[in-house]
Amino acid sequence: MGMSETITLTVTGMTCGHCKTAVHNALEDLEGVSHVDVDLDAGRARVTGGDVPSMIEAIREEGYDAEVAS
Amino acid sequence: MGMSETITLTVTGMTCGHCKTAVHNALEDLEGVSHVDVDLDAGRARVTGGDVPSMIEAIREEGYDAEVAS
Repeated sequence: MGMSETITLTVTGMTCGHCKTAVHNALEDLEGVSHVDVDLDAGRARVTGGDVPSMIEAIREEGYDAEVAS
Repeated sequence: MGMSETITLTVTGMTCGHCKTAVHNALEDLEGVSHVDVDLDAGRARVTGGDVPSMIEAIREEGYDAEVAS
């Protein structure tokens, strides 16, 4: 039962609820991810668990771009 | 084997490829519809077969609005 870090990503290209759902589901399907919260208006995703390169790859595969929020 | 009329609808609210797919699939599932072409950038759908009230209702159920193009 380790602690899982929560990562905040800036996600670009989401325009609607379908986009939000696509990003949400892609992140939620990643190994090790226990919680996902996507904010469409802010262009942001908060992900608990998993690893950052997999998160970014998953988002890119859905047609959006992402980077760790500064 | 009757002739099917092609109706052009103006569709508002589509922002991305997921929206286009949602509208396309909703129209394609309608009884009597034989062909659907959705143009995201133009905000337009061309539908062959089916009836106009069902088309508009199906699009509204997906969260968009539509009217017969003038």
